[in-house]
Amino acid sequence: MDFTKKMLRDDALQGKVIVVTGGGSGLGKAMTKYFLELGAKVAITSRDLDKLKATASELEKETGGECLPLACDVRHYDQVEAMLAEVLNKFGKADVLLNNAAGNFISPTERLSANAFDTIIDIVLKGSKNCTLAFGKHWIDTKQENSTILNIVTTYAWTGSAYVVPSATAKAGVLAMTRSLAVEWAKYGIRSNAIAPGPFPTKGAWDRLLPGDLKDKFDLAKKVPLKRVGDHQELANLAAYLVSDFSAYVNGEVVTIDGGEWLKGAGQFNLLEAIPEEMWDMLEAMIKAKKDK
Amino acid sequence: MDFTKKMLRDDALQGKVIVVTGGGSGLGKAMTKYFLELGAKVAITSRDLDKLKATASELEKETGGECLPLACDVRHYDQVEAMLAEVLNKFGKADVLLNNAAGNFISPTERLSANAFDTIIDIVLKGSKNCTLAFGKHWIDTKQENSTILNIVTTYAWTGSAYVVPSATAKAGVLAMTRSLAVEWAKYGIRSNAIAPGPFPTKGAWDRLLPGDLKDKFDLAKKVPLKRVGDHQELANLAAYLVSDFSAYVNGEVVTIDGGEWLKGAGQFNLLEAIPEEMWDMLEAMIKAKKDK
Amino acid sequence: MDFTKKMLRDDALQGKVIVVTGGGSGLGKAMTKYFLELGAKVAITSRDLDKLKATASELEKETGGECLPLACDVRHYDQVEAMLAEVLNKFGKADVLLNNAAGNFISPTERLSANAFDTIIDIVLKGSKNCTLAFGKHWIDTKQENSTILNIVTTYAWTGSAYVVPSATAKAGVLAMTRSLAVEWAKYGIRSNAIAPGPFPTKGAWDRLLPGDLKDKFDLAKKVPLKRVGDHQELANLAAYLVSDFSAYVNGEVVTIDGGEWLKGAGQFNLLEAIPEEMWDMLEAMIKAKKDK
Amino acid sequence: MDFTKKMLRDDALQGKVIVVTGGGSGLGKAMTKYFLELGAKVAITSRDLDKLKATASELEKETGGECLPLACDVRHYDQVEAMLAEVLNKFGKADVLLNNAAGNFISPTERLSANAFDTIIDIVLKGSKNCTLAFGKHWIDTKQENSTILNIVTTYAWTGSAYVVPSATAKAGVLAMTRSLAVEWAKYGIRSNAIAPGPFPTKGAWDRLLPGDLKDKFDLAKKVPLKRVGDHQELANLAAYLVSDFSAYVNGEVVTIDGGEWLKGAGQFNLLEAIPEEMWDMLEAMIKAKKDK
Repeated sequence: MDFTKKMLRDDALQGKVIVVTGGGSGLGKAMTKYFLELGAKVAITSRDLDKLKATASELEKETGGECLPLACDVRHYDQVEAMLAEVLNKFGKADVLLNNAAGNFISPTERLSANAFDTIIDIVLKGSKNCTLAFGKHWIDTKQENSTILNIVTTYAWTGSAYVVPSATAKAGVLAMTRSLAVEWAKYGIRSNAIAPGPFPTKGAWDRLLPGDLKDKFDLAKKVPLKRVGDHQELANLAAYLVSDFSAYVNGEVVTIDGGEWLKGAGQFNLLEAIPEEMWDMLEAMIKAKKDK
Repeated sequence: MDFTKKMLRDDALQGKVIVVTGGGSGLGKAMTKYFLELGAKVAITSRDLDKLKATASELEKETGGECLPLACDVRHYDQVEAMLAEVLNKFGKADVLLNNAAGNFISPTERLSANAFDTIIDIVLKGSKNCTLAFGKHWIDTKQENSTILNIVTTYAWTGSAYVVPSATAKAGVLAMTRSLAVEWAKYGIRSNAIAPGPFPTKGAWDRLLPGDLKDKFDLAKKVPLKRVGDHQELANLAAYLVSDFSAYVNGEVVTIDGGEWLKGAGQFNLLEAIPEEMWDMLEAMIKAKKDK
Repeated sequence: MDFTKKMLRDDALQGKVIVVTGGGSGLGKAMTKYFLELGAKVAITSRDLDKLKATASELEKETGGECLPLACDVRHYDQVEAMLAEVLNKFGKADVLLNNAAGNFISPTERLSANAFDTIIDIVLKGSKNCTLAFGKHWIDTKQENSTILNIVTTYAWTGSAYVVPSATAKAGVLAMTRSLAVEWAKYGIRSNAIAPGPFPTKGAWDRLLPGDLKDKFDLAKKVPLKRVGDHQELANLAAYLVSDFSAYVNGEVVTIDGGEWLKGAGQFNLLEAIPEEMWDMLEAMIKAKKDK
Repeated sequence: MDFTKKMLRDDALQGKVIVVTGGGSGLGKAMTKYFLELGAKVAITSRDLDKLKATASELEKETGGECLPLACDVRHYDQVEAMLAEVLNKFGKADVLLNNAAGNFISPTERLSANAFDTIIDIVLKGSKNCTLAFGKHWIDTKQENSTILNIVTTYAWTGSAYVVPSATAKAGVLAMTRSLAVEWAKYGIRSNAIAPGPFPTKGAWDRLLPGDLKDKFDLAKKVPLKRVGDHQELANLAAYLVSDFSAYVNGEVVTIDGGEWLKGAGQFNLLEAIPEEMWDMLEAMIKAKKDK
């Protein structure tokens, strides 16, 4: 690895083999597309092979790259092992694991059954763990160096969040795994990092959930200091940086890309944004008046 | 300083019913004993009923309090529901849930099977979740107010740690659950908090793990700025505060009690502690000399 | 629940000498009162000697304890040294330094002059540093062991906050000092900890700031999951614990006591609290209907 | 701004005007060079105009870009205002402020005078604040949108660190300012972010500090999981990303680039790396033997 190479080039991922779980749609698809454009070969996985095939074929046409669709339920370790074997069979190696597959229930926690809660832990935490373990064992056994794990988490992995508690617990677990293995597996040439995306809506997901008038009330863009949601390419840019060699010294890090959303809620006096300019003028005048006495 | 001194007024927990999972031994037993001394009724649970019975009987004799031993594998939601029913049957209510049951493997991660990893997630994360869900649903259904959840986590819940990765992921999940429900369930009068203990050795646990000469090399006290491990009563004091009404405005918080251990490792220049005083004298003289030129 | 109940055994601070900067009013006065009740001797400092004298005399009458009022502008190191000398002269020693003196401007940052910003850094950060340095040098020189520093910070010390930026930067600095010295000075028997209080209103402070109709709009209690502000005795209980020997293994820690306020803002989906129960019923029915197809 | 543009291009900073404080040497110079290569115009400032002129002339020759050397002591607000005026005069605008100027003392804290401590706060915290305030007021007054502040902090901004306590307090303050203004000034089109670099040694700095045999003992690379220090271009890549429009949705974030250094120290069981493979074999055998009984 030449640490003096400069980023921001066309062939940034040339020769890399990347596996994106949950790569058939949404953000996984957006990242996959950009990786293909930058020269990587990408395997995409999920439980829905038909959808994966359609996505792979669409992206190959658009980018001229190579995209391999593979059915895999990440909750089952043997399926993950089989998926990895197919990747190795097809591409000869795997350089990057991107744990993106996820599930979520938006619900008051007391309305969830113990089983429903478990399902999210199984998909998100055990699924990411299964992939990480299978790929890690392979890399360590074959002494492949310069491998990278990238995990998609959320800002509520560290703050927690009401109404998505199964996801919050599972994503927090994934974040801890990221930081733990960044230290433990560095000696094998494996880096581990994470991205915590804010609102990057995928077509219809949020809209479908909430009836018309609630949609405006819970407009996610309003909570973001920058007053907009993110563009998929913005996330893809960051992900490409983190799986590329340009970020070779970034290890154990979770990079937040949310326009400042979580901080806006967290800071105690941020709500004063609602005070209009004229009121600040008045307050300033009051304070000055008091001083002059 | 006498670290075994007891902190709270004698009747601090009078009338409270507390359930301590993993209460049969170690830190769970130490906290249980102090709760009994402060007037609480305590149910202790684990998979080993004989051990629980011996502990309950021993503690009842020592404290004059009431201690109920209940077999329960927290991995199974139906067992947790049955355990809660027995507590309600015996004591008429439950005020506090202390999720203390845990499991851990100390091992390089690549040596673990996917199943072994799952076992720790099941005990620690799903177990805490099962208890939390059962108690929470009960409190919300019966409109009981002024309930408290206290979770025992670790400092590596947020930093991660090599060689205990299953535990790190699971404890991180428990911490996120703590913070999520502190917000979501506050409206039902339920507080959620956590403690992150540093080294509080229980008889033989660490010793047994490591052969003689390694024991000294990995002496946990050496990593602690205060140069000692914690006394069980110190943890019990903090736990008693957090389950008592005195901490009624503490919510969503994880309190670390580790003598400064994790910070000592984390801070970039903390390793300079190894520089002797004379060397600092010399460095100071060098700098002064340079300035005077 | 009676939030004004007192937590510690009556003699918990017997024999301790405690210095509380900014001890003449507000939270500093509330903590001072409780320390006196628990047997400590307390020196209180600020720039306003008349107010200090009135407070000291009032508290001595109420508690029967010994309270020493001392004028000191903590921005000036020589005044801090003189203050410490008077404490030693009067009480023979000093065991605890509680850095509580603070200042704040609530204002859009771009309306502040560079000088106004500096004033807050000087009072909060340099002031706390001056006291810490003077007391630390004294403790190290005289080889006094078992000393404690307690710093009052805020939750926006780590999240930041708009409209109080000078305070945010200064309090963040104090928090870093807390964690740094917890490690560095532990070898001298000095512990360092902090408290981050949420809304504990002092008479009139917040009311005076905002005109009538804004007061309700920015009602701080509304942001707290527990739906109330804190009682001064709740903060005093926590402070007493942290300056007492009962917390001897807590070091380098910042304990938040805010009812969950900062987490409520931070978690991404916490805003869904505004969804009424019937809406959740409807959403649940919709999801079930979809599954049954 | 077109959020769908893809990063990793030659002209990534074309047309941007960037001001780098402390830009005459070390990491500031490395970042400046890369910004020039990517098409930016860069003003570099410090107190040493001769050095700045040499650097500017060297970098202009190497890159063909435009580099403006400006003497400025950031501790003095009027000098900062004058510096900004010169930038505007020369380049017509300023798009990016990179607060990189810093100072540090490596010393036991009790050996520092109150004045020495203040000097670091003045350079690092007040200096960054002065530049931020001057540029922010200008951007807000002139309604310039799409401006960016990037602050160089350290990992001990949140963990604290012994022996560099003035720097730790000041950098923590800068981090809080970053997060506060990311929220407050987003409405004016100003983003704020930070980088926390691990060990990126500059020629001789660390070597000169420590005599020969200590150099090896305190080899910073040893503390890094990746077993190496960082390359200046790696930091420059990250900085270029964060000041470019490609990171337009990153706001309020501090990105750590340290090879995992701080996490390695922080995680409780990371020290077990010293256990050799054979020992793990043995421990595994012991555990298996116990199970088989």
